[in-house]
Amino acid sequence: MALPKHIGFIPDGNRRWAVNRGMGKQDGYAFGIEPGLQLYEQCKALGIEEVSVYGFTQDNVKRPSEQKHAFSQACVHFAEEVTRRGCALLVVGDEDSEQFPAELRHFRKRHSSGIKVNFLVNYGWKWDLAGMKQGDIRSSDVSRLDMVVRWGGGRRLSGFLPVQSVYADIYVVDDYWPDFMPEHLDQALEWYSRQDRTLGG
Amino acid sequence: MALPKHIGFIPDGNRRWAVNRGMGKQDGYAFGIEPGLQLYEQCKALGIEEVSVYGFTQDNVKRPSEQKHAFSQACVHFAEEVTRRGCALLVVGDEDSEQFPAELRHFRKRHSSGIKVNFLVNYGWKWDLAGMKQGDIRSSDVSRLDMVVRWGGGRRLSGFLPVQSVYADIYVVDDYWPDFMPEHLDQALEWYSRQDRTLGG
Repeated sequence: MALPKHIGFIPDGNRRWAVNRGMGKQDGYAFGIEPGLQLYEQCKALGIEEVSVYGFTQDNVKRPSEQKHAFSQACVHFAEEVTRRGCALLVVGDEDSEQFPAELRHFRKRHSSGIKVNFLVNYGWKWDLAGMKQGDIRSSDVSRLDMVVRWGGGRRLSGFLPVQSVYADIYVVDDYWPDFMPEHLDQALEWYSRQDRTLGG
Repeated sequence: MALPKHIGFIPDGNRRWAVNRGMGKQDGYAFGIEPGLQLYEQCKALGIEEVSVYGFTQDNVKRPSEQKHAFSQACVHFAEEVTRRGCALLVVGDEDSEQFPAELRHFRKRHSSGIKVNFLVNYGWKWDLAGMKQGDIRSSDVSRLDMVVRWGGGRRLSGFLPVQSVYADIYVVDDYWPDFMPEHLDQALEWYSRQDRTLGG
């Protein structure tokens, strides 16, 4: 089976998941950390070389402060735990902003080796592309994406790494992100292996 | 029903359609013109303000010359006929290349008024974004896309206007483009009206 080298993940649906369970919208994010670690272990075991994960965006920080605090904390916890588990973490996002968690500043450069994890934190597609005015996009250390998997049913990229996504096959899972199951990735990979890829040639 | 203001169309599958009918790959493109005109009339009647259509890309011109000649001719015919029918045509693509059809040079600027049709001819996403080094993307006269409809079953954007597509809802039709039916657009619009759009906020 042809495996993608680089997969993007859009873990959407935390808020809808929480509301469905009678919790506040902001309570959903904490339930997204453990699924993220499971997915990370699954990718590592499969031999995937690089993954990119949507944390939060510069659009998302327009939300109410309790949500902002919750998703920012969830991102810090995920980043710390995934590093402890031996990945080569790169955080991609605008660190010249008070919305950027100070704990993650160290990871704006990739330090270690191992499976590459690119984590988008206070990321904005405009911020990313504006780097071209100084020579190159700001996410230039992130390679081309082979596949993007999105949870929560939305059939769109929502500004996720527009340059790296140009040829990516997009797979949508209708389940909300906190309901992640390893079968979701299995099915996405099986689907990916059946796609015809010509890159326009 | 919430109508999109701006829809992108990726009319893929001409070659597979031709091969399935025992024709040469290059013979499929001519069968894509009439469906394009039908779709244009349908959009105009619905009151859609702007449409963007994939003609061919700088990647596509790496194909055998008989294919290149066929899709280039089909694009010229489509552009001429759609202009005759009163649209405000803008051709977006690298005109500083022998692959760019001379007949379309006049349309690199939008002249007339009416429903806006942006037609991507010898377009490349790298060419488009490289404009930022001189101040702005080269497709800056093309507005943000609300929805992208792709025929031929591929679940990817293939470099289609990456900046304008960041928030677009992507609808995929499995039929090949020459088998276009008005019901495809009806179904896409019905689906679009049910999508939840927050633009990240």
